[in-house]
Amino acid sequence: MQNDFNQIKLRVDAELEKISRFESKSLSQSVKYSLSKGGKRLRPLLLVEACNAFSGSKEDAIPASVAIEILHNFTLVHDDIMDGDLIRHGRETVHSKWDIGTGVLTGDALLAIALNIIQSYNNLEIIKLFNKSLIDVCDGQSLDKEFENLDISIDQYMHMIKLKTGCLLGVSAQIGSVIGGGNTNDSKLMYEYGQYIGKAFQIQDDYLEVFSNEKKMGKTLKSDIVLNKKTFLMINGYLKNSQKMNEIKEIIIRGEFKLGQKKLVDFYIDSGIKDLANQKIKDLISKANKKLDMIENIRPGNNLIYFSNLILNRDK
Amino acid sequence: MQNDFNQIKLRVDAELEKISRFESKSLSQSVKYSLSKGGKRLRPLLLVEACNAFSGSKEDAIPASVAIEILHNFTLVHDDIMDGDLIRHGRETVHSKWDIGTGVLTGDALLAIALNIIQSYNNLEIIKLFNKSLIDVCDGQSLDKEFENLDISIDQYMHMIKLKTGCLLGVSAQIGSVIGGGNTNDSKLMYEYGQYIGKAFQIQDDYLEVFSNEKKMGKTLKSDIVLNKKTFLMINGYLKNSQKMNEIKEIIIRGEFKLGQKKLVDFYIDSGIKDLANQKIKDLISKANKKLDMIENIRPGNNLIYFSNLILNRDK
Repeated sequence: MQNDFNQIKLRVDAELEKISRFESKSLSQSVKYSLSKGGKRLRPLLLVEACNAFSGSKEDAIPASVAIEILHNFTLVHDDIMDGDLIRHGRETVHSKWDIGTGVLTGDALLAIALNIIQSYNNLEIIKLFNKSLIDVCDGQSLDKEFENLDISIDQYMHMIKLKTGCLLGVSAQIGSVIGGGNTNDSKLMYEYGQYIGKAFQIQDDYLEVFSNEKKMGKTLKSDIVLNKKTFLMINGYLKNSQKMNEIKEIIIRGEFKLGQKKLVDFYIDSGIKDLANQKIKDLISKANKKLDMIENIRPGNNLIYFSNLILNRDK
Repeated sequence: MQNDFNQIKLRVDAELEKISRFESKSLSQSVKYSLSKGGKRLRPLLLVEACNAFSGSKEDAIPASVAIEILHNFTLVHDDIMDGDLIRHGRETVHSKWDIGTGVLTGDALLAIALNIIQSYNNLEIIKLFNKSLIDVCDGQSLDKEFENLDISIDQYMHMIKLKTGCLLGVSAQIGSVIGGGNTNDSKLMYEYGQYIGKAFQIQDDYLEVFSNEKKMGKTLKSDIVLNKKTFLMINGYLKNSQKMNEIKEIIIRGEFKLGQKKLVDFYIDSGIKDLANQKIKDLISKANKKLDMIENIRPGNNLIYFSNLILNRDK
């Protein structure tokens, strides 16, 4: 199984390395940089395995999986500008390595490439799914930003991450199933499967930022807390003890990051919020797997359950 | 004629006012703001008249013309971030009114909307033309940026503005003709027509920034000169007398903008560069019109020649 997944990752990485569609050398360079950082390639993996779960050839799904990965990277490059993040997974972000203008344009160029790849299927359904996911991602991203200044409920949060993260995994699963020959109903169920996986993934992402050390995740717990970014953990933290959360936030804002993180970890453990988050992730993965059970024409012995487990058990 | 053009503009403006596809209120708001500034709506006008020139109904071309205008606005919102422009046509730019993050996301959202409108034709040819223009615009924009730090020839400049500005007017004309039922060859000629118009438009845009007062154009001669943005006038200025150009640039950089502008105007007039630019604009429009003459199935009495004249004679 791990071998299957690795093969897809290597295949996608190889395709991404070939991307260079611009006359402008500087644009080709920043586009290449943004796509070369490796990463887990989870969305391509899901798309390819979804296609194969309907007995479609994995090779047929490669271009779409590459397009989805490029779309994902477009969101990362622009999000890093929005959040002012200078480092991602231990590497300078595009706008940090060059400048904000280059970051904006590189993101746009990535999206342009993704669109030009996805259209090669000559399939309006696939194009429409792809374009709709772009609307949802923008909406989710904007809600995420709006929520920085609001008290929001867990329901509002879950809706936001559905748009921000869920829909892209959803559409990866759905496009994969369409390429694989899945019918309309089954493809919709695949979308819902991917959405649940995506929500679990997002909660876990924020979870790992707190409970892994910074090097391991390489991201930005600090900027999230300073910006008042909402996470499953943080909302529950404020619901449980807002005074405590504000104290910890103050510690982090005044620069004592390690102390703040330690206090946050202790508080989440002692108050049961860590367990709550773990349970939520498990529930979401379980809901995702139930969608798989409802799909009529899925190939027995497909790899999607391993994909669910990959998400459930990841530690980075 | 003017009446026909006004009607299309009003129709497009009315459609643009209806755009509001986002759950996020703040995103809907910034998207609305970016589309509500009026403007000349030249690209929609061209697209609709191109459709009608092949006897297509104007109404059929409205959605595509709206999509093209939104795509154009996407480029403006992101370009303003890249160039650090705070004012466009007398109004705050999006990232100036809100912040850079909002500017980035608003541009992305505009593009997402445009894609979702253009797909409603269920026509792969139209989608592909649209997506290709996005690649070209990114490329042109990046070359424009690259050229800030290089000495470039007039040929390199003409190629850059073909990508940056020409292709979007080209594709407007081409998509219009496809919707109107033009054949492949005629549609390609329409693309070339639009490209020549676009190049004329870009040279004229930079021309008007120098020779109109700042209020009239409301844009950014100053930032262009400080950033060393290449224009037809400026390249010819440096070819003719680089010492003089550097002196004028110094005056503008140290803050004496009015004096600098006056010296620039005088130099361009005395050296014959103003006349050269006027001649170039006329030549390009004339080349554009020759493409129209080559189109077999164009409807006699169509409005495109008036569109050419509108571009030729604009003073703002």
